[in-house]
Amino acid sequence: MADKSTFVPVVAVALLGGDGRILLQKRRAGSVHGGLWEFPGGKIEPGESAEAAVIREISEELGVELAVDALEPVSFASDPVLPPAPRAPHVILLYACRHWRGEPRCLDGEAIAWFAPDAIAGLAMPPLDVPLAAALKKWILPLANPAARS
Amino acid sequence: MADKSTFVPVVAVALLGGDGRILLQKRRAGSVHGGLWEFPGGKIEPGESAEAAVIREISEELGVELAVDALEPVSFASDPVLPPAPRAPHVILLYACRHWRGEPRCLDGEAIAWFAPDAIAGLAMPPLDVPLAAALKKWILPLANPAARS
Repeated sequence: MADKSTFVPVVAVALLGGDGRILLQKRRAGSVHGGLWEFPGGKIEPGESAEAAVIREISEELGVELAVDALEPVSFASDPVLPPAPRAPHVILLYACRHWRGEPRCLDGEAIAWFAPDAIAGLAMPPLDVPLAAALKKWILPLANPAARS
Repeated sequence: MADKSTFVPVVAVALLGGDGRILLQKRRAGSVHGGLWEFPGGKIEPGESAEAAVIREISEELGVELAVDALEPVSFASDPVLPPAPRAPHVILLYACRHWRGEPRCLDGEAIAWFAPDAIAGLAMPPLDVPLAAALKKWILPLANPAARS
Protein backbone atom coordinates (compact mmCIF):
# COMPACT_ATOMS: atom_id res chain seq x y z
CA MET A 1 0.00 0.00 0.00
CA ALA A 2 1.48 3.29 -1.06
CA ASP A 3 -0.72 5.42 1.16
CA LYS A 4 0.10 5.16 4.86
CA SER A 5 -3.14 6.90 5.73
CA THR A 6 -5.27 4.05 4.44
CA PHE A 7 -5.44 0.53 5.78
CA VAL A 8 -2.77 -2.15 5.58
CA PRO A 9 -4.01 -5.29 3.81
CA VAL A 10 -2.71 -8.54 5.26
CA VAL A 11 -3.35 -12.15 4.32
CA ALA A 12 -3.14 -15.20 6.54
CA VAL A 13 -3.80 -18.88 6.13
CA ALA A 14 -5.02 -21.70 8.31
CA LEU A 15 -3.42 -24.92 7.12
CA LEU A 16 -5.89 -27.68 8.02
CA GLY A 17 -4.29 -31.03 8.72
CA GLY A 18 -5.97 -34.29 7.84
CA ASP A 19 -6.45 -34.92 11.58
CA GLY A 20 -8.46 -31.70 11.96
CA ARG A 21 -5.65 -29.75 13.57
CA ILE A 22 -4.61 -26.25 12.51
CA LEU A 23 -1.10 -24.89 12.05
CA LEU A 24 -0.20 -21.75 13.97
CA GLN A 25 3.02 -19.80 14.20
CA LYS A 26 4.52 -18.17 17.27
CA ARG A 27 5.85 -14.67 16.61
CA ARG A 28 9.49 -13.98 17.39
CA ALA A 29 10.27 -12.35 20.71
CA GLY A 30 11.06 -8.69 20.12
CA SER A 31 8.69 -8.28 17.16
CA VAL A 32 5.29 -6.59 17.43
CA HIS A 33 3.10 -9.07 19.34
CA GLY A 34 6.22 -11.16 20.01
CA GLY A 35 5.55 -14.54 21.61
CA LEU A 36 1.90 -14.64 20.53
CA TRP A 37 0.41 -17.34 18.30
CA GLU A 38 -0.95 -16.27 14.93
CA PHE A 39 -2.05 -17.55 11.58
CA PRO A 40 1.01 -17.40 9.31
CA GLY A 41 0.96 -14.80 6.53
CA GLY A 42 1.86 -11.17 5.98
CA LYS A 43 1.26 -7.93 4.11
CA ILE A 44 0.06 -7.80 0.53
CA GLU A 45 2.80 -6.04 -1.42
CA PRO A 46 2.00 -3.40 -4.05
CA GLY A 47 1.14 -5.11 -7.32
CA GLU A 48 0.20 -8.37 -5.63
CA SER A 49 -3.17 -10.02 -5.49
CA ALA A 50 -4.31 -11.42 -2.15
CA GLU A 51 -3.77 -15.00 -3.31
CA ALA A 52 -0.30 -14.26 -4.66
CA ALA A 53 0.61 -12.75 -1.30
CA VAL A 54 -0.60 -15.86 0.54
CA ILE A 55 1.43 -18.13 -1.69
CA ARG A 56 4.58 -16.00 -1.33
CA GLU A 57 4.28 -15.56 2.44
CA ILE A 58 3.68 -19.24 3.14
CA SER A 59 6.59 -20.22 0.95
CA GLU A 60 8.81 -17.77 2.86
CA GLU A 61 7.54 -18.63 6.35
CA LEU A 62 6.84 -22.36 6.13
CA GLY A 63 8.62 -23.56 3.01
CA VAL A 64 5.51 -25.15 1.55
CA GLU A 65 3.86 -24.61 -1.80
CA LEU A 66 0.18 -23.71 -2.02
CA ALA A 67 -1.98 -23.76 -5.15
CA VAL A 68 -4.34 -20.86 -5.87
CA ASP A 69 -7.35 -23.14 -6.21
CA ALA A 70 -6.70 -24.71 -2.79
CA LEU A 71 -7.26 -21.36 -1.03
CA GLU A 72 -10.71 -21.02 0.55
CA PRO A 73 -11.80 -17.62 1.93
CA VAL A 74 -12.89 -17.96 5.57
CA SER A 75 -13.39 -14.48 6.99
CA PHE A 76 -11.60 -11.24 7.70
CA ALA A 77 -10.83 -9.05 10.67
CA SER A 78 -10.39 -5.32 10.77
CA ASP A 79 -8.93 -2.88 13.26
CA PRO A 80 -11.41 -0.59 14.94
CA VAL A 81 -12.14 2.45 12.87
CA LEU A 82 -11.49 5.52 14.81
CA PRO A 83 -8.53 7.80 14.26
CA PRO A 84 -6.11 8.86 15.56
CA ALA A 85 -4.53 5.43 15.64
CA PRO A 86 -0.93 4.60 16.56
CA ARG A 87 -0.58 2.80 13.23
CA ALA A 88 -2.54 2.47 10.00
CA PRO A 89 -5.46 0.10 10.58
CA HIS A 90 -4.86 -3.47 9.44
CA VAL A 91 -7.32 -5.72 7.63
CA ILE A 92 -6.48 -9.43 7.66
CA LEU A 93 -8.01 -11.80 5.11
CA LEU A 94 -7.97 -15.39 6.39
CA TYR A 95 -7.93 -18.31 3.97
CA ALA A 96 -8.09 -22.00 4.80
CA CYS A 97 -6.07 -24.57 2.89
CA ARG A 98 -6.31 -28.37 3.08
CA HIS A 99 -3.65 -29.31 0.54
CA TRP A 100 -0.08 -28.21 0.01
CA ARG A 101 3.23 -29.49 -1.23
CA GLY A 102 6.05 -30.00 1.25
CA GLU A 103 6.33 -30.30 5.02
CA PRO A 104 5.84 -27.07 7.01
CA ARG A 105 9.07 -25.83 8.64
CA CYS A 106 9.58 -22.86 10.92
CA LEU A 107 11.57 -20.47 8.70
CA ASP A 108 10.42 -17.12 10.08
CA GLY A 109 8.63 -17.41 13.43
CA GLU A 110 9.85 -18.62 16.79
CA ALA A 111 7.92 -21.89 16.53
CA ILE A 112 5.12 -23.59 14.64
CA ALA A 113 2.69 -26.14 16.05
CA TRP A 114 -0.55 -27.91 15.25
CA PHE A 115 -3.57 -27.23 17.46
CA ALA A 116 -7.01 -28.79 17.77
CA PRO A 117 -9.73 -26.18 17.04
CA ASP A 118 -10.86 -26.23 20.66
CA ALA A 119 -7.33 -25.56 21.92
CA ILE A 120 -6.87 -22.30 20.02
CA ALA A 121 -9.20 -20.21 22.20
CA GLY A 122 -6.80 -20.75 25.11
CA LEU A 123 -3.77 -19.33 23.30
CA ALA A 124 -2.40 -15.80 23.57
CA MET A 125 -2.95 -14.28 20.12
CA PRO A 126 -2.66 -10.83 18.53
CA PRO A 127 -5.96 -8.91 18.68
CA LEU A 128 -7.07 -9.53 15.09
CA ASP A 129 -6.23 -13.25 15.22
CA VAL A 130 -8.75 -13.78 18.03
CA PRO A 131 -11.89 -13.08 15.93
CA LEU A 132 -10.30 -14.91 13.00
CA ALA A 133 -9.87 -18.02 15.14
CA ALA A 134 -13.52 -17.78 16.21
CA ALA A 135 -14.64 -17.36 12.59
CA LEU A 136 -12.51 -20.32 11.53
CA LYS A 137 -14.02 -22.54 14.20
CA LYS A 138 -17.51 -21.58 13.03
CA TRP A 139 -16.48 -22.05 9.38
CA ILE A 140 -15.08 -25.54 10.07
CA LEU A 141 -18.18 -26.61 11.99
CA PRO A 142 -20.39 -27.67 9.04
CA LEU A 143 -17.49 -29.79 7.74
CA ALA A 144 -17.54 -31.76 10.96
CA ASN A 145 -21.30 -32.00 10.99
CA PRO A 146 -22.64 -32.71 7.47
CA ALA A 147 -26.23 -32.64 8.76
CA ALA A 148 -25.84 -28.92 9.37
CA ARG A 149 -25.16 -28.24 5.68
CA SER A 150 -28.06 -27.20 3.50
CA MET B 1 -6.02 2.91 -3.84
CA ALA B 2 -3.24 4.98 -5.37
CA ASP B 3 -1.60 2.07 -7.16
CA LYS B 4 -3.64 0.73 -10.05
CA SER B 5 -1.45 -2.35 -10.22
CA THR B 6 -2.56 -3.62 -6.84
CA PHE B 7 -6.02 -4.73 -5.84
CA VAL B 8 -9.11 -2.60 -5.35
CA PRO B 9 -10.58 -2.98 -1.85
CA VAL B 10 -14.38 -2.94 -1.72
CA VAL B 11 -16.79 -3.28 1.18
CA ALA B 12 -20.35 -4.56 1.08
CA VAL B 13 -23.03 -5.20 3.63
CA ALA B 14 -25.90 -7.64 4.03
CA LEU B 15 -28.66 -5.94 5.98
CA LEU B 16 -30.49 -8.74 7.82
CA GLY B 17 -34.15 -8.05 8.45
CA GLY B 18 -35.93 -9.29 11.53
CA ASP B 19 -37.86 -11.73 9.31
CA GLY B 20 -34.61 -13.35 8.13
CA ARG B 21 -34.60 -11.66 4.74
CA ILE B 22 -31.60 -9.93 3.21
CA LEU B 23 -31.51 -6.60 1.38
CA LEU B 24 -29.98 -6.59 -2.10
CA GLN B 25 -29.56 -3.82 -4.62
CA LYS B 26 -30.00 -4.06 -8.38
CA ARG B 27 -27.25 -2.28 -10.32
CA ARG B 28 -28.25 0.43 -12.74
CA ALA B 29 -28.54 -0.54 -16.41
CA GLY B 30 -25.50 0.78 -18.25
CA SER B 31 -23.10 0.36 -15.32
CA VAL B 32 -20.61 -2.50 -15.03
CA HIS B 33 -22.72 -5.59 -14.21
CA GLY B 34 -25.84 -3.48 -14.86
CA GLY B 35 -29.11 -5.19 -13.95
CA LEU B 36 -27.46 -7.70 -11.61
CA TRP B 37 -28.28 -8.00 -7.90
CA GLU B 38 -25.51 -7.27 -5.43
CA PHE B 39 -24.81 -6.51 -1.81
CA PRO B 40 -24.81 -2.71 -1.47
CA GLY B 41 -21.44 -1.07 -0.81
CA GLY B 42 -18.49 0.32 -2.73
CA LYS B 43 -14.78 1.06 -2.84
CA ILE B 44 -12.76 1.98 0.22
CA GLU B 45 -11.42 5.48 -0.41
CA PRO B 46 -7.82 6.45 0.44
CA GLY B 47 -7.60 7.28 4.14
CA GLU B 48 -10.73 5.33 5.02
CA SER B 49 -10.99 2.28 7.19
CA ALA B 50 -13.17 -0.58 5.96
CA GLU B 51 -15.88 0.20 8.50
CA ALA B 52 -15.91 3.91 7.68
CA ALA B 53 -16.35 3.01 4.01
CA VAL B 54 -19.31 0.74 4.82
CA ILE B 55 -20.99 3.44 6.85
CA ARG B 56 -20.45 6.08 4.15
CA GLU B 57 -21.56 3.87 1.26
CA ILE B 58 -24.72 2.66 2.97
CA SER B 59 -25.64 6.19 3.90
CA GLU B 60 -25.17 7.25 0.26
CA GLU B 61 -26.90 4.25 -1.33
CA LEU B 62 -29.69 3.46 1.13
CA GLY B 63 -30.01 6.52 3.34
CA VAL B 64 -29.65 4.53 6.54
CA GLU B 65 -27.23 4.98 9.40
CA LEU B 66 -25.09 2.06 10.59
CA ALA B 67 -23.09 1.91 13.81
CA VAL B 68 -19.54 0.55 13.78
CA ASP B 69 -20.25 -2.00 16.47
CA ALA B 70 -23.22 -3.40 14.52
CA LEU B 71 -20.94 -4.53 11.66
CA GLU B 72 -20.13 -8.24 11.75
CA PRO B 73 -17.47 -9.59 9.35
CA VAL B 74 -18.87 -12.48 7.30
CA SER B 75 -16.37 -13.35 4.59
CA PHE B 76 -14.56 -11.94 1.59
CA ALA B 77 -14.21 -12.70 -2.09
CA SER B 78 -11.26 -12.05 -4.33
CA ASP B 79 -10.77 -11.95 -8.08
CA PRO B 80 -8.69 -14.73 -9.52
CA VAL B 81 -5.00 -14.01 -9.30
CA LEU B 82 -3.47 -14.22 -12.65
CA PRO B 83 -2.36 -11.24 -14.69
CA PRO B 84 -2.83 -9.81 -17.21
CA ALA B 85 -6.32 -8.84 -16.09
CA PRO B 86 -8.67 -6.40 -17.82
CA ARG B 87 -8.90 -4.45 -14.56
CA ALA B 88 -7.16 -4.39 -11.19
CA PRO B 89 -8.37 -7.35 -9.14
CA HIS B 90 -11.10 -6.55 -6.63
CA VAL B 91 -11.38 -7.84 -3.07
CA ILE B 92 -14.81 -7.46 -1.46
CA LEU B 93 -15.21 -7.58 2.32
CA LEU B 94 -18.77 -8.55 3.30
CA TYR B 95 -20.24 -7.47 6.62
CA ALA B 96 -23.63 -8.38 8.05
CA CYS B 97 -25.71 -5.88 10.00
CA ARG B 98 -28.88 -6.53 12.00
CA HIS B 99 -29.55 -3.01 13.30
CA TRP B 100 -29.64 0.36 11.62
CA ARG B 101 -31.35 3.71 11.86
CA GLY B 102 -33.82 4.71 9.14
CA GLU B 103 -35.73 2.92 6.41
CA PRO B 104 -33.67 1.75 3.41
CA ARG B 105 -34.43 3.70 0.24
CA CYS B 106 -33.06 3.18 -3.25
CA LEU B 107 -30.82 6.23 -3.72
CA ASP B 108 -28.19 4.82 -6.05
CA GLY B 109 -29.18 1.51 -7.63
CA GLU B 110 -32.02 0.63 -9.97
CA ALA B 111 -33.98 -1.13 -7.24
CA ILE B 112 -33.66 -2.63 -3.78
CA ALA B 113 -35.53 -5.65 -2.46
CA TRP B 114 -35.55 -8.11 0.43
CA PHE B 115 -34.85 -11.76 -0.35
CA ALA B 116 -35.07 -14.96 1.67
CA PRO B 117 -31.63 -16.62 1.92
CA ASP B 118 -32.78 -19.51 -0.26
CA ALA B 119 -33.99 -17.14 -3.00
CA ILE B 120 -30.61 -15.48 -3.53
CA ALA B 121 -28.95 -18.41 -5.29
CA GLY B 122 -31.45 -17.99 -8.15
CA LEU B 123 -30.56 -14.35 -8.81
CA ALA B 124 -28.19 -13.04 -11.47
CA MET B 125 -25.30 -11.53 -9.51
CA PRO B 126 -21.83 -10.15 -10.29
CA PRO B 127 -19.13 -12.85 -10.08
CA LEU B 128 -17.77 -11.93 -6.64
CA ASP B 129 -21.24 -11.61 -5.09
CA VAL B 130 -21.97 -15.27 -5.84
CA PRO B 131 -19.42 -16.74 -3.38
CA LEU B 132 -20.29 -13.99 -0.89
CA ALA B 133 -23.94 -15.05 -0.98
CA ALA B 134 -22.91 -18.67 -0.40
CA ALA B 135 -20.67 -17.64 2.49
CA LEU B 136 -23.45 -15.55 4.00
CA LYS B 137 -25.89 -18.44 3.84
CA LYS B 138 -23.37 -20.67 5.62
CA TRP B 139 -22.64 -17.92 8.14
CA ILE B 140 -26.34 -17.42 8.92
CA LEU B 141 -26.92 -21.14 9.33
CA PRO B 142 -25.83 -21.52 12.98
CA LEU B 143 -28.09 -18.59 13.87
CA ALA B 144 -31.07 -20.51 12.52
CA ASN B 145 -29.96 -23.72 14.22
CA PRO B 146 -28.64 -23.01 17.72
CA ALA B 147 -27.86 -26.70 18.23
CA ALA B 148 -25.11 -26.37 15.65
CA ARG B 149 -23.31 -23.74 17.71
CA SER B 150 -20.54 -24.84 19.97
